[in-house]
Amino acid sequence: MANKNEKMVEQITGMDVDFAQWYTDVVKKAELIDYSGVKGCMIIRPYGYAIWENIQRDLDSRFKALGHENVYMPMFIPESLLQKEKDHVEGFAPECAWVTVGGENQLTERLCVRPTSETLFCEHFRNVIKSYRDLPKLYNQWCNVVRWEKTTRPFLRTSEFLWQEGHTMHETEKEAREETQRMLGVYRDFYAETLAIPAYTGRKTEKEKFAGAEETYTIEPMMHNGVALQGGTSHYFGTGFAEAFGIQFSGRENTLQYPHQTSWGLSTRSIGAIIMTHGDDNGLILPPRVAPIQVVIVPIAQHKEGVLDKANELKARLVKNFRVKLDDSDNSTGWKFSQYEMKGVPLRLELGPRDIEANSCVLVSRVTREKTVVSLDNLEEEVEKALNKVHDELYQRALENMKARTYTATTLDEFLDTAKNKSGYIKAMWCGETECEEKIKSLTGGVKSRCIPFDEEHLADTCVCCGKPAKHMVIWGRQY
Amino acid sequence: MANKNEKMVEQITGMDVDFAQWYTDVVKKAELIDYSGVKGCMIIRPYGYAIWENIQRDLDSRFKALGHENVYMPMFIPESLLQKEKDHVEGFAPECAWVTVGGENQLTERLCVRPTSETLFCEHFRNVIKSYRDLPKLYNQWCNVVRWEKTTRPFLRTSEFLWQEGHTMHETEKEAREETQRMLGVYRDFYAETLAIPAYTGRKTEKEKFAGAEETYTIEPMMHNGVALQGGTSHYFGTGFAEAFGIQFSGRENTLQYPHQTSWGLSTRSIGAIIMTHGDDNGLILPPRVAPIQVVIVPIAQHKEGVLDKANELKARLVKNFRVKLDDSDNSTGWKFSQYEMKGVPLRLELGPRDIEANSCVLVSRVTREKTVVSLDNLEEEVEKALNKVHDELYQRALENMKARTYTATTLDEFLDTAKNKSGYIKAMWCGETECEEKIKSLTGGVKSRCIPFDEEHLADTCVCCGKPAKHMVIWGRQY
Repeated sequence: MANKNEKMVEQITGMDVDFAQWYTDVVKKAELIDYSGVKGCMIIRPYGYAIWENIQRDLDSRFKALGHENVYMPMFIPESLLQKEKDHVEGFAPECAWVTVGGENQLTERLCVRPTSETLFCEHFRNVIKSYRDLPKLYNQWCNVVRWEKTTRPFLRTSEFLWQEGHTMHETEKEAREETQRMLGVYRDFYAETLAIPAYTGRKTEKEKFAGAEETYTIEPMMHNGVALQGGTSHYFGTGFAEAFGIQFSGRENTLQYPHQTSWGLSTRSIGAIIMTHGDDNGLILPPRVAPIQVVIVPIAQHKEGVLDKANELKARLVKNFRVKLDDSDNSTGWKFSQYEMKGVPLRLELGPRDIEANSCVLVSRVTREKTVVSLDNLEEEVEKALNKVHDELYQRALENMKARTYTATTLDEFLDTAKNKSGYIKAMWCGETECEEKIKSLTGGVKSRCIPFDEEHLADTCVCCGKPAKHMVIWGRQY
Repeated sequence: MANKNEKMVEQITGMDVDFAQWYTDVVKKAELIDYSGVKGCMIIRPYGYAIWENIQRDLDSRFKALGHENVYMPMFIPESLLQKEKDHVEGFAPECAWVTVGGENQLTERLCVRPTSETLFCEHFRNVIKSYRDLPKLYNQWCNVVRWEKTTRPFLRTSEFLWQEGHTMHETEKEAREETQRMLGVYRDFYAETLAIPAYTGRKTEKEKFAGAEETYTIEPMMHNGVALQGGTSHYFGTGFAEAFGIQFSGRENTLQYPHQTSWGLSTRSIGAIIMTHGDDNGLILPPRVAPIQVVIVPIAQHKEGVLDKANELKARLVKNFRVKLDDSDNSTGWKFSQYEMKGVPLRLELGPRDIEANSCVLVSRVTREKTVVSLDNLEEEVEKALNKVHDELYQRALENMKARTYTATTLDEFLDTAKNKSGYIKAMWCGETECEEKIKSLTGGVKSRCIPFDEEHLADTCVCCGKPAKHMVIWGRQY
């Protein structure tokens, strides 16, 4: 018990020593990624990609249950197409990668590698939406996108990343607005139920919304160190793109109308959120519902007769319901413990001669290191229960951290003092002016509005920055 | 019975009238694709993408069952990296798309959008392969690739396409050669068992092999009109790339060695193969194991009491095991029949008041239009049986077509005569010289060697082209 919290994998920098270095150590040593010679692009290794596959499977079934269909658009956007909606091109052109040579010829028009695909979807929507009977169109695509970033970090900010982008068209504004919120709700549920990550959700300010959107909604989980990560966004576009692209349908009263549009996206950044929300000084901790290995079986005294046979028998039983690995390698038991802790396997199953004699085994939680002796008779139920417990423990721990690191400020001094001395979110009133957001960002060296939460509180009557009448409560924070 | 073969969807050009136009009509009217404003790139619509998702699910589980793991490499290849293996760059550089501007800056080194990823995998392998204990590495990735094509056709040849590319590294030549053949076998089984497509398989000649490979193996299904489509390839690289990239491992005797490499790929072209192997004058015919809709329920006299209730009840039963659609729209029954025939739904379930009274329904095969009255008591088994029958019928029909269109030639005159007057494959002996391949291609206006099949026959002693002693029997044909 004494060394329950000892740092077993010495190579990982402590979180409190240097959080950024801890993150880099974890992504490399848990074999999630490798760096490549291509500027700002990462290699996602099998263990990292398996997390993404589990995320995809879960989200995809949530989308399909709501009637969405997957499609695939080209990865190139001709410059003239990108320019059709002016706010959109202003937002994205500065970070595009441009193809200028194809085969052995200079192209007459350069092609942007998609940073997002609103323009391509709109070009297609114009072909297939003629009547209200063609609506809604509920499309999604899983693909790679490119945004030319100056400074990059694995998962958090890379020049190329993987994501899903939903694009929908609706007959009425009401339907489209409902879709925007519904899909943010899907993200919120996914973060909570699948990744065990709580979050604030709400609306972005004018300054922070997506290029071309009327409204942007966002989910803002807080990382262990109090910094925000934008976990997914959902946009309502109104009819702006439809007008720019000439998409019209004949409505129920036989008049030509513009459809109302949404888009929403969630990317491989979510893996960064998992790492930074749940990890500890021993490495990664993976939420059971996306962990590539949910249970690792470590035989104790495996040279003794019957141990490996029994371990294989348990594996054969568990593999029907769980993602299981049995490590029967020659490595020491201590090394195995450290290794799978570092890789964040949520549950360890220890099985030795005495356990076998007692018809039991030991389950060890990666979160609390709590050991539970369970009977082999109902092992499946015990493992299920233990994995759900790990999920709940992770969620609760993250929620407590987020609550503890959410501060309130009613004066500018208080705000600046908190921003300087604490790491976390600050709730404060705001007048609605971009000027105050800019001033706060400048005075604090980077604190920005995260969102106007759905459940605003009334903390004061005046804006924390300028003292004018407050319009909204905003959650503020630094971000990845 | 009289109009069993009548052409019900008038808009589709007849196959015998103009096969190319028939193909274009089918991909558009069955809503598989839409054209985009991006040169040579297609939009894959929901119905087309759902086929690809079913292909992915099936193949991915075959790969994983053999121990392969999915990864993700960057989509950009720096020019210097592409140039490391000289045969490889010679093969691919002419068809690359080049990114030369990133953000707002000219790049110091241009980046190729991956046409294939051997070079990227090798860069990573150099980092992670140190010892024989690190081998084999069995990697695969699902991604988009770009090859700048001059003339393009949906699925068959597009500047951007979707595929999987397997990349493996092995301790010994023997293991790598076995992997190369094993994965070709996976493709052959997949085509036969999942797509209901028979094919010739064998080795490519020196002239036709992959840029940088020592050996290329191929699967060559024949389309309905006798033209070949390269359905998938598997390459053995020896240690060529490993030497060029400096990938070495310490072997069992502690000496430094180069690992032996393979790669293998299958793309969205396979959807083109499905269309052109199975389709008919009424449109698409989809093999049941990848059909997005396996059974369409068409209610007869649906306004009569109880019909829609019963149809919904059957749908609720079938949806547990099959991909089912119930069309209860106001469209006429005749329109529905044509529509789902055009979309290639393998099985139609008709249900009217008299069927309900008799506790039965009618199953109609898309291939033969044969009607079977089945009891509702064991509907699940009947549907399963009927779908398997459609699969078998498709396979047999394609096999008979391939056999009937496979000719033999022992003299050049006979070869040229067949190439001119018949559409199909020609089996003929070959001396082994590239010169004869080039001569045959030139004399016939495009007939090329498809493969040296695994089961070569001895048709004659001499090369069909030059008359010198024959080394191999080759299957020749025109290609997409």
